[in-house]
Amino acid sequence: MHLKRESPTPLYIQLKNTLVAQISTGTYESHQQLPSERELCERYNVSRTTVRQAITELIYEGAVYARPGKGTFVSEPKINQQLKTLTGFSQDVVERGGVPTSHVLKAELLAADPGLAEVLQITPDAEVVMLSRLRLANDVPLAIETTYLYHALCPGVLEHDFAIESLYRVLGRDYGLRLVRAEQTIEAGLANIEELNLLSLVSPAPVLKMERLTYTDQDILVEYTMSIYRSDRYKFRTTLSIVQA
Amino acid sequence: MHLKRESPTPLYIQLKNTLVAQISTGTYESHQQLPSERELCERYNVSRTTVRQAITELIYEGAVYARPGKGTFVSEPKINQQLKTLTGFSQDVVERGGVPTSHVLKAELLAADPGLAEVLQITPDAEVVMLSRLRLANDVPLAIETTYLYHALCPGVLEHDFAIESLYRVLGRDYGLRLVRAEQTIEAGLANIEELNLLSLVSPAPVLKMERLTYTDQDILVEYTMSIYRSDRYKFRTTLSIVQA
Repeated sequence: MHLKRESPTPLYIQLKNTLVAQISTGTYESHQQLPSERELCERYNVSRTTVRQAITELIYEGAVYARPGKGTFVSEPKINQQLKTLTGFSQDVVERGGVPTSHVLKAELLAADPGLAEVLQITPDAEVVMLSRLRLANDVPLAIETTYLYHALCPGVLEHDFAIESLYRVLGRDYGLRLVRAEQTIEAGLANIEELNLLSLVSPAPVLKMERLTYTDQDILVEYTMSIYRSDRYKFRTTLSIVQA
Repeated sequence: MHLKRESPTPLYIQLKNTLVAQISTGTYESHQQLPSERELCERYNVSRTTVRQAITELIYEGAVYARPGKGTFVSEPKINQQLKTLTGFSQDVVERGGVPTSHVLKAELLAADPGLAEVLQITPDAEVVMLSRLRLANDVPLAIETTYLYHALCPGVLEHDFAIESLYRVLGRDYGLRLVRAEQTIEAGLANIEELNLLSLVSPAPVLKMERLTYTDQDILVEYTMSIYRSDRYKFRTTLSIVQA
Protein backbone atom coordinates (compact mmCIF):
# COMPACT_ATOMS: atom_id res chain seq x y z
CA MET A 1 0.00 0.00 0.00
CA HIS A 2 1.48 3.34 -0.98
CA LEU A 3 0.44 6.98 -0.57
CA LYS A 4 -0.34 9.19 -3.54
CA ARG A 5 1.87 12.21 -3.77
CA GLU A 6 -0.17 13.74 -6.61
CA SER A 7 -3.46 13.48 -4.64
CA PRO A 8 -5.14 16.67 -3.36
CA THR A 9 -5.56 14.84 -0.03
CA PRO A 10 -2.63 15.73 2.26
CA LEU A 11 -0.19 12.88 2.91
CA TYR A 12 -0.86 12.86 6.66
CA ILE A 13 -4.59 12.36 6.01
CA GLN A 14 -3.82 9.54 3.58
CA LEU A 15 -1.56 7.93 6.17
CA LYS A 16 -4.16 8.38 8.87
CA ASN A 17 -6.85 6.81 6.67
CA THR A 18 -4.54 3.92 5.81
CA LEU A 19 -3.92 3.21 9.50
CA VAL A 20 -7.65 3.48 10.27
CA ALA A 21 -8.36 0.95 7.51
CA GLN A 22 -5.69 -1.39 8.89
CA ILE A 23 -7.18 -1.13 12.37
CA SER A 24 -10.71 -1.75 11.10
CA THR A 25 -9.64 -4.78 9.07
CA GLY A 26 -7.70 -6.26 11.98
CA THR A 27 -4.10 -5.76 10.77
CA TYR A 28 -3.62 -4.11 14.15
CA GLU A 29 -5.71 -5.38 17.03
CA SER A 30 -6.96 -3.64 20.18
CA HIS A 31 -4.10 -2.63 22.49
CA GLN A 32 -1.51 -3.71 19.89
CA GLN A 33 1.38 -1.29 19.46
CA LEU A 34 1.58 0.64 16.18
CA PRO A 35 4.92 0.64 14.33
CA SER A 36 7.29 3.35 15.58
CA GLU A 37 7.46 6.78 13.93
CA ARG A 38 10.71 5.79 12.26
CA GLU A 39 9.24 2.58 10.87
CA LEU A 40 6.19 4.41 9.53
CA CYS A 41 8.45 7.04 7.87
CA GLU A 42 10.36 4.30 6.08
CA ARG A 43 7.41 2.14 5.16
CA TYR A 44 5.41 4.99 3.60
CA ASN A 45 8.33 7.15 2.54
CA VAL A 46 7.09 10.22 4.36
CA SER A 47 8.60 12.73 6.78
CA ARG A 48 8.54 12.51 10.57
CA THR A 49 6.24 15.55 10.58
CA THR A 50 3.72 13.76 8.39
CA VAL A 51 3.75 10.69 10.64
CA ARG A 52 3.33 12.81 13.75
CA GLN A 53 0.39 14.71 12.23
CA ALA A 54 -1.31 11.44 11.30
CA ILE A 55 -0.78 9.97 14.78
CA THR A 56 -1.96 13.17 16.48
CA GLU A 57 -5.20 13.06 14.48
CA LEU A 58 -5.68 9.40 15.39
CA ILE A 59 -5.20 10.18 19.08
CA TYR A 60 -7.63 13.06 18.80
CA GLU A 61 -10.23 10.83 17.19
CA GLY A 62 -9.71 8.18 19.86
CA ALA A 63 -8.59 5.47 17.42
CA VAL A 64 -5.24 5.10 19.19
CA TYR A 65 -3.80 6.15 22.53
CA ALA A 66 -0.26 7.11 23.53
CA ARG A 67 1.57 5.69 26.54
CA PRO A 68 4.42 8.09 27.25
CA GLY A 69 7.79 6.43 26.76
CA LYS A 70 6.11 3.28 25.41
CA GLY A 71 4.57 4.18 22.07
CA THR A 72 1.17 4.31 20.43
CA PHE A 73 -1.45 1.60 20.84
CA VAL A 74 -4.74 0.74 19.18
CA SER A 75 -7.85 1.69 21.20
CA GLU A 76 -10.56 -0.82 21.94
CA PRO A 77 -13.52 -0.38 19.62
CA LYS A 78 -16.25 1.68 21.25
CA ILE A 79 -19.33 -0.02 22.56
CA ASN A 80 -21.94 0.68 19.90
CA GLN A 81 -25.25 0.81 21.66
CA GLN A 82 -28.57 0.85 19.86
CA LEU A 83 -30.92 3.64 20.95
CA LYS A 84 -34.14 1.86 20.31
CA THR A 85 -35.17 -0.51 23.05
CA LEU A 86 -35.53 0.59 26.63
CA THR A 87 -33.04 -1.41 28.65
CA GLY A 88 -30.99 -0.72 31.73
CA PHE A 89 -27.24 -0.64 31.95
CA SER A 90 -26.92 -4.14 33.49
CA GLN A 91 -28.98 -5.77 30.77
CA ASP A 92 -26.99 -3.96 28.06
CA VAL A 93 -23.70 -5.23 29.46
CA VAL A 94 -24.94 -8.80 29.88
CA GLU A 95 -26.21 -8.83 26.29
CA ARG A 96 -22.71 -7.88 25.15
CA GLY A 97 -21.26 -10.76 27.15
CA GLY A 98 -19.79 -8.63 29.93
CA VAL A 99 -20.14 -8.67 33.69
CA PRO A 100 -21.92 -5.57 35.02
CA THR A 101 -21.28 -4.21 38.49
CA SER A 102 -22.34 -1.04 40.27
CA HIS A 103 -21.01 1.11 43.05
CA VAL A 104 -23.70 3.08 44.84
CA LEU A 105 -22.39 6.62 45.19
CA LYS A 106 -25.51 8.07 46.79
CA ALA A 107 -28.87 6.66 47.82
CA GLU A 108 -30.98 9.11 49.74
CA LEU A 109 -34.27 10.92 50.09
CA LEU A 110 -34.45 14.63 49.47
CA ALA A 111 -36.96 17.37 48.93
CA ALA A 112 -37.43 18.25 45.25
CA ASP A 113 -36.02 21.64 44.40
CA PRO A 114 -38.12 23.70 41.96
CA GLY A 115 -36.20 22.54 38.85
CA LEU A 116 -36.45 18.86 39.72
CA ALA A 117 -40.10 19.21 40.71
CA GLU A 118 -40.86 20.67 37.30
CA VAL A 119 -39.05 17.84 35.50
CA LEU A 120 -40.78 15.11 37.53
CA GLN A 121 -44.15 16.91 37.39
CA ILE A 122 -44.55 16.91 41.17
CA THR A 123 -44.91 19.67 43.75
CA PRO A 124 -41.76 21.40 45.02
CA ASP A 125 -40.44 19.92 48.27
CA ALA A 126 -42.13 16.57 47.53
CA GLU A 127 -39.98 13.65 48.65
CA VAL A 128 -37.69 12.30 45.96
CA VAL A 129 -35.37 9.31 45.83
CA MET A 130 -31.91 10.08 44.52
CA LEU A 131 -29.84 7.09 43.48
CA SER A 132 -26.42 7.73 41.99
CA ARG A 133 -24.37 4.80 40.74
CA LEU A 134 -21.06 4.23 39.05
CA ARG A 135 -21.66 1.56 36.40
CA LEU A 136 -18.86 -0.80 35.44
CA ALA A 137 -18.43 -3.61 32.93
CA ASN A 138 -15.69 -6.13 33.65
CA ASP A 139 -14.51 -3.75 36.38
CA VAL A 140 -13.99 -0.86 33.96
CA PRO A 141 -15.97 2.27 34.94
CA LEU A 142 -18.13 3.27 31.97
CA ALA A 143 -20.87 5.55 33.20
CA ILE A 144 -22.29 7.52 36.11
CA GLU A 145 -26.07 7.30 36.41
CA THR A 146 -28.08 9.54 38.70
CA THR A 147 -31.75 8.66 38.98
CA TYR A 148 -34.55 10.62 40.60
CA LEU A 149 -37.86 8.97 41.48
CA TYR A 150 -40.97 10.39 43.11
CA HIS A 151 -40.89 8.52 46.41
CA ALA A 152 -44.67 8.22 46.71
CA LEU A 153 -44.60 5.92 43.66
CA CYS A 154 -42.09 3.55 45.24
CA PRO A 155 -42.08 4.01 49.02
CA GLY A 156 -39.18 2.22 50.72
CA VAL A 157 -37.37 1.49 47.45
CA LEU A 158 -34.04 2.46 49.03
CA GLU A 159 -34.20 -0.61 51.27
CA HIS A 160 -32.92 -2.51 48.24
CA ASP A 161 -29.20 -2.75 47.56
CA PHE A 162 -28.79 -1.32 44.08
CA ALA A 163 -25.19 -2.41 43.91
CA ILE A 164 -26.75 -5.85 43.29
CA GLU A 165 -30.35 -5.36 42.23
CA SER A 166 -31.72 -3.90 39.01
CA LEU A 167 -33.77 -0.76 39.62
CA TYR A 168 -36.09 -1.49 36.70
CA ARG A 169 -36.72 -5.02 37.97
CA VAL A 170 -37.50 -3.79 41.49
CA LEU A 171 -39.86 -1.09 40.20
CA GLY A 172 -41.74 -3.64 38.11
CA ARG A 173 -41.82 -6.50 40.63
CA ASP A 174 -42.42 -4.62 43.90
CA TYR A 175 -44.30 -1.52 42.79
CA GLY A 176 -46.10 -2.60 39.61
CA LEU A 177 -44.37 0.13 37.63
CA ARG A 178 -43.89 -1.39 34.19
CA LEU A 179 -41.55 0.91 32.28
CA VAL A 180 -42.32 0.81 28.59
CA ARG A 181 -41.20 4.10 27.08
CA ALA A 182 -38.45 6.66 27.54
CA GLU A 183 -37.75 10.05 26.04
CA GLN A 184 -34.02 10.49 25.86
CA THR A 185 -31.70 13.35 24.95
CA ILE A 186 -28.01 13.09 24.14
CA GLU A 187 -25.49 15.87 24.50
CA ALA A 188 -21.74 16.19 24.48
CA GLY A 189 -19.90 17.91 27.30
CA LEU A 190 -16.65 17.93 29.23
CA ALA A 191 -16.24 15.77 32.32
CA ASN A 192 -16.05 17.81 35.52
CA ILE A 193 -13.55 16.94 38.25
CA GLU A 194 -15.75 14.41 40.02
CA GLU A 195 -16.57 12.70 36.71
CA LEU A 196 -12.90 12.59 35.68
CA ASN A 197 -12.04 10.84 38.94
CA LEU A 198 -14.89 8.35 38.91
CA LEU A 199 -14.42 7.42 35.24
CA SER A 200 -10.59 7.36 35.32
CA LEU A 201 -10.31 10.05 32.64
CA VAL A 202 -7.76 12.79 32.01
CA SER A 203 -8.92 16.38 31.42
CA PRO A 204 -10.12 17.63 28.96
CA ALA A 205 -12.30 14.56 28.46
CA PRO A 206 -15.39 14.72 26.25
CA VAL A 207 -18.33 12.75 27.59
CA LEU A 208 -21.80 11.82 26.37
CA LYS A 209 -24.53 13.17 28.60
CA MET A 210 -27.88 11.45 28.45
CA GLU A 211 -31.12 12.48 30.08
CA ARG A 212 -33.96 10.03 30.23
CA LEU A 213 -37.60 10.39 31.26
CA THR A 214 -39.20 6.99 31.65
CA TYR A 215 -42.93 6.25 31.57
CA THR A 216 -45.09 3.28 32.54
CA ASP A 217 -47.68 1.52 30.40
CA GLN A 218 -50.18 3.88 32.16
CA ASP A 219 -48.12 6.83 30.93
CA ILE A 220 -46.99 7.72 34.45
CA LEU A 221 -43.63 9.47 34.57
CA VAL A 222 -41.51 7.42 36.97
CA GLU A 223 -37.88 8.16 36.45
CA TYR A 224 -35.60 11.03 35.54
CA THR A 225 -32.05 9.86 34.97
CA MET A 226 -28.96 11.83 34.04
CA SER A 227 -26.08 9.70 32.80
CA ILE A 228 -22.50 10.51 31.93
CA TYR A 229 -20.93 8.00 29.54
CA ARG A 230 -17.24 7.80 28.70
CA SER A 231 -17.01 8.86 25.09
CA ASP A 232 -13.79 6.92 24.57
CA ARG A 233 -15.76 3.73 25.23
CA TYR A 234 -19.25 4.50 23.97
CA LYS A 235 -21.11 5.49 20.90
CA PHE A 236 -24.81 5.29 20.24
CA ARG A 237 -26.55 4.26 17.09
CA THR A 238 -30.01 4.78 15.78
CA THR A 239 -31.99 4.21 12.61
CA LEU A 240 -33.73 7.07 10.86
CA SER A 241 -36.41 6.61 8.26
CA ILE A 242 -38.58 8.75 6.08
CA VAL A 243 -42.10 8.45 4.80
CA GLN A 244 -41.60 9.86 1.32
CA ALA A 245 -44.16 12.37 0.12
CA MET B 1 -36.57 31.43 47.43
CA HIS B 2 -33.96 30.48 50.01
CA LEU B 3 -31.26 27.83 50.24
CA LYS B 4 -31.34 25.13 52.89
CA ARG B 5 -28.33 25.19 55.14
CA GLU B 6 -29.32 21.90 56.83
CA SER B 7 -29.62 20.04 53.50
CA PRO B 8 -27.05 17.36 52.58
CA THR B 9 -26.89 19.01 49.13
CA PRO B 10 -24.00 21.52 49.07
CA LEU B 11 -25.05 25.16 48.92
CA TYR B 12 -23.37 25.76 45.56
CA ILE B 13 -25.38 22.90 44.01
CA GLN B 14 -28.57 24.31 45.52
CA LEU B 15 -27.71 27.73 44.10
CA LYS B 16 -26.87 26.22 40.72
CA ASN B 17 -30.18 24.32 40.64
CA THR B 18 -32.07 27.44 41.63
CA LEU B 19 -30.51 29.41 38.78
CA VAL B 20 -31.19 26.56 36.32
CA ALA B 21 -34.84 26.54 37.40
CA GLN B 22 -35.03 30.33 36.96
CA ILE B 23 -33.55 30.03 33.48
CA SER B 24 -35.90 27.21 32.50
CA THR B 25 -38.96 29.09 33.74
CA GLY B 26 -37.94 32.28 31.95
CA THR B 27 -36.95 34.49 34.91
CA TYR B 28 -33.74 34.99 32.97
CA GLU B 29 -33.94 34.89 29.19
CA SER B 30 -31.39 33.90 26.56
CA HIS B 31 -28.42 36.29 26.48
CA GLN B 32 -29.72 38.13 29.54
CA GLN B 33 -27.06 38.97 32.12
CA LEU B 34 -27.17 37.12 35.44
CA PRO B 35 -26.97 39.19 38.63
CA SER B 36 -23.39 39.97 39.68
CA GLU B 37 -21.50 37.76 42.12
CA ARG B 38 -22.02 40.35 44.82
CA GLU B 39 -25.77 40.53 44.22
CA LEU B 40 -26.07 36.73 44.29
CA CYS B 41 -24.10 36.61 47.57
CA GLU B 42 -26.50 39.05 49.15
CA ARG B 43 -29.68 37.62 47.71
CA TYR B 44 -28.95 34.04 48.83
CA ASN B 45 -26.80 34.89 51.85
CA VAL B 46 -23.86 32.77 50.66
CA SER B 47 -20.14 33.33 50.27
CA ARG B 48 -18.37 34.52 47.13
CA THR B 49 -16.77 31.06 46.85
CA THR B 50 -20.19 29.39 46.79
CA VAL B 51 -21.42 31.76 44.07
CA ARG B 52 -18.29 31.18 42.00
CA GLN B 53 -18.59 27.40 42.29
CA ALA B 54 -22.21 27.54 41.18
CA ILE B 55 -21.38 29.79 38.20
CA THR B 56 -18.41 27.63 37.21
CA GLU B 57 -20.64 24.55 37.13
CA LEU B 58 -23.21 26.41 35.04
CA ILE B 59 -20.52 27.47 32.55
CA TYR B 60 -19.26 23.90 32.42
CA GLU B 61 -22.72 22.60 31.69
CA GLY B 62 -23.23 25.23 29.00
CA ALA B 63 -26.23 26.86 30.72
CA VAL B 64 -24.46 30.23 30.89
CA TYR B 65 -21.42 31.78 29.27
CA ALA B 66 -18.92 34.34 30.56
CA ARG B 67 -17.86 37.45 28.66
CA PRO B 68 -14.64 38.60 30.27
CA GLY B 69 -15.03 42.02 31.88
CA LYS B 70 -18.77 41.99 31.15
CA GLY B 71 -20.34 39.29 33.30
CA THR B 72 -22.23 36.06 32.94
CA PHE B 73 -25.04 35.59 30.45
CA VAL B 74 -27.70 32.96 29.83
CA SER B 75 -26.99 30.62 26.92
CA GLU B 76 -29.50 30.06 24.18
CA PRO B 77 -31.38 26.80 24.64
CA LYS B 78 -29.84 24.04 22.59
CA ILE B 79 -31.52 22.93 19.41
CA ASN B 80 -33.26 19.70 20.38
CA GLN B 81 -33.35 17.58 17.27
CA GLN B 82 -35.38 14.40 17.00
CA LEU B 83 -33.42 11.39 15.76
CA LYS B 84 -36.23 9.64 14.04
CA THR B 85 -37.00 10.97 10.60
CA LEU B 86 -34.40 11.19 7.91
CA THR B 87 -34.07 14.84 7.00
CA GLY B 88 -31.23 17.03 5.83
CA PHE B 89 -29.79 20.00 7.65
CA SER B 90 -31.62 22.61 5.54
CA GLN B 91 -35.01 21.05 6.11
CA ASP B 92 -34.34 20.78 9.86
CA VAL B 93 -33.49 24.47 10.08
CA VAL B 94 -36.48 25.57 8.02
CA GLU B 95 -38.80 23.48 10.20
CA ARG B 96 -37.47 25.35 13.23
CA GLY B 97 -38.21 28.67 11.52
CA GLY B 98 -34.58 29.52 10.73
CA VAL B 99 -32.77 30.43 7.54
CA PRO B 100 -30.26 27.76 6.50
CA THR B 101 -27.17 28.60 4.49
CA SER B 102 -24.11 26.61 3.48
CA HIS B 103 -20.53 27.36 2.61
CA VAL B 104 -18.99 24.75 0.37
CA LEU B 105 -15.56 23.95 1.85
CA LYS B 106 -14.64 21.23 -0.62
CA ALA B 107 -16.37 19.67 -3.63
CA GLU B 108 -14.16 17.29 -5.52
CA LEU B 109 -13.70 13.84 -6.99
CA LEU B 110 -11.16 11.50 -5.47
CA ALA B 111 -10.14 7.86 -5.54
CA ALA B 112 -11.52 5.89 -2.58
CA ASP B 113 -8.82 4.89 -0.14
CA PRO B 114 -9.20 1.40 1.35
CA GLY B 115 -11.06 2.55 4.46
CA LEU B 116 -13.58 4.63 2.54
CA ALA B 117 -14.02 1.88 -0.06
CA GLU B 118 -14.92 -0.55 2.70
CA VAL B 119 -17.45 1.84 4.23
CA LEU B 120 -19.12 2.61 0.88
CA GLN B 121 -18.94 -1.05 -0.22
CA ILE B 122 -17.10 -0.19 -3.45
CA THR B 123 -13.71 -1.19 -4.87
CA PRO B 124 -10.63 0.72 -3.71
CA ASP B 125 -9.67 3.57 -6.05
CA ALA B 126 -13.25 3.84 -7.37
CA GLU B 127 -14.21 7.45 -8.00
CA VAL B 128 -15.90 9.13 -5.08
CA VAL B 129 -17.53 12.53 -4.65
CA MET B 130 -16.44 14.42 -1.56
CA LEU B 131 -18.61 17.34 -0.53
CA SER B 132 -17.72 19.21 2.61
CA ARG B 133 -19.98 22.00 3.81
CA LEU B 134 -20.19 24.39 6.71
CA ARG B 135 -23.86 24.53 7.69
CA LEU B 136 -25.27 27.71 9.20
CA ALA B 137 -28.62 28.79 10.59
CA ASN B 138 -29.30 32.51 10.69
CA ASP B 139 -25.61 33.02 9.85
CA VAL B 140 -24.44 31.09 12.93
CA PRO B 141 -22.15 28.15 12.05
CA LEU B 142 -23.65 25.01 13.60
CA ALA B 143 -22.13 22.00 11.86
CA ILE B 144 -19.56 20.73 9.41
CA GLU B 145 -20.85 17.99 7.13
CA THR B 146 -18.59 15.91 4.93
CA THR B 147 -20.37 13.61 2.52
CA TYR B 148 -18.93 10.85 0.35
CA LEU B 149 -20.89 9.43 -2.58
CA TYR B 150 -19.99 6.72 -5.08
CA HIS B 151 -19.71 8.84 -8.23
CA ALA B 152 -21.06 6.13 -10.55
CA LEU B 153 -24.43 6.48 -8.77
CA CYS B 154 -24.63 10.22 -9.43
CA PRO B 155 -22.30 11.15 -12.30
CA GLY B 156 -21.83 14.90 -12.66
CA VAL B 157 -23.49 15.70 -9.35
CA LEU B 158 -20.79 18.27 -8.55
CA GLU B 159 -22.09 20.51 -11.35
CA HIS B 160 -24.71 21.61 -8.84
CA ASP B 161 -24.00 24.42 -6.42
CA PHE B 162 -24.55 22.89 -3.01
CA ALA B 163 -24.29 26.24 -1.32
CA ILE B 164 -27.82 26.70 -2.66
CA GLU B 165 -29.21 23.29 -3.57
CA SER B 166 -30.20 20.43 -1.28
CA LEU B 167 -28.11 17.33 -1.89
CA TYR B 168 -30.98 15.00 -1.01
CA ARG B 169 -33.30 16.80 -3.41
CA VAL B 170 -30.77 16.62 -6.27
CA LEU B 171 -30.12 12.93 -5.65
CA GLY B 172 -33.84 12.18 -5.75
CA ARG B 173 -34.80 14.43 -8.64
CA ASP B 174 -31.83 13.97 -11.01
CA TYR B 175 -30.62 10.48 -10.16
CA GLY B 176 -33.71 8.67 -8.91
CA LEU B 177 -32.03 7.95 -5.60
CA ARG B 178 -34.83 8.06 -3.07
CA LEU B 179 -33.23 8.06 0.36
CA VAL B 180 -35.50 6.36 2.87
CA ARG B 181 -33.33 5.00 5.66
CA ALA B 182 -30.16 5.91 7.51
CA GLU B 183 -28.05 4.14 10.09
CA GLN B 184 -26.53 6.77 12.33
CA THR B 185 -23.99 6.74 15.14
CA ILE B 186 -23.37 9.54 17.64
CA GLU B 187 -20.16 10.09 19.52
CA ALA B 188 -18.65 12.87 21.59
CA GLY B 189 -15.21 14.24 20.84
CA LEU B 190 -13.10 17.36 20.99
CA ALA B 191 -13.04 19.80 18.09
CA ASN B 192 -9.70 19.83 16.24
CA ILE B 193 -8.11 23.11 15.14
CA GLU B 194 -9.92 23.30 11.81
CA GLU B 195 -13.25 22.56 13.48
CA LEU B 196 -12.65 25.17 16.19
CA ASN B 197 -12.02 27.80 13.53
CA LEU B 198 -14.94 26.92 11.32
CA LEU B 199 -17.42 26.65 14.19
CA SER B 200 -16.12 29.70 16.12
CA LEU B 201 -15.33 27.64 19.20
CA VAL B 202 -12.65 27.95 21.87
CA SER B 203 -10.55 24.91 22.82
CA PRO B 204 -11.25 22.54 24.54
CA ALA B 205 -14.66 22.35 22.86
CA PRO B 206 -16.74 19.18 23.05
CA VAL B 207 -18.57 18.35 19.83
CA LEU B 208 -21.11 15.78 18.73
CA LYS B 209 -19.81 13.59 15.93
CA MET B 210 -22.35 11.85 13.76
CA GLU B 211 -21.78 9.27 11.09
CA ARG B 212 -24.60 8.41 8.74
CA LEU B 213 -25.00 5.70 6.13
CA THR B 214 -28.01 6.40 3.94
CA TYR B 215 -29.89 3.85 1.81
CA THR B 216 -32.43 4.09 -0.98
CA ASP B 217 -35.79 2.34 -1.18
CA GLN B 218 -33.88 -0.33 -3.17
CA ASP B 219 -31.50 -0.70 -0.20
CA ILE B 220 -28.59 0.78 -2.16
CA LEU B 221 -26.02 2.50 0.04
CA VAL B 222 -25.68 6.02 -1.37
CA GLU B 223 -24.14 8.29 1.16
CA TYR B 224 -21.59 8.24 3.95
CA THR B 225 -21.62 11.48 5.92
CA MET B 226 -19.51 12.54 8.87
CA SER B 227 -20.85 15.56 10.72
CA ILE B 228 -19.47 17.65 13.53
CA TYR B 229 -22.14 19.50 15.49
CA ARG B 230 -21.51 22.23 18.03
CA SER B 231 -22.47 20.72 21.35
CA ASP B 232 -23.17 24.13 22.84
CA ARG B 233 -26.00 24.52 20.32
CA TYR B 234 -27.24 20.99 19.73
CA LYS B 235 -28.69 18.04 21.52
CA PHE B 236 -30.44 15.06 20.03
CA ARG B 237 -33.49 13.29 21.30
CA THR B 238 -34.94 9.91 20.69
CA THR B 239 -37.71 7.69 22.00
CA LEU B 240 -36.97 4.24 23.37
CA SER B 241 -39.60 1.59 23.89
CA ILE B 242 -39.83 -1.92 25.15
CA VAL B 243 -41.97 -4.88 24.24
CA GLN B 244 -42.59 -6.32 27.68
CA ALA B 245 -42.18 -10.06 28.08
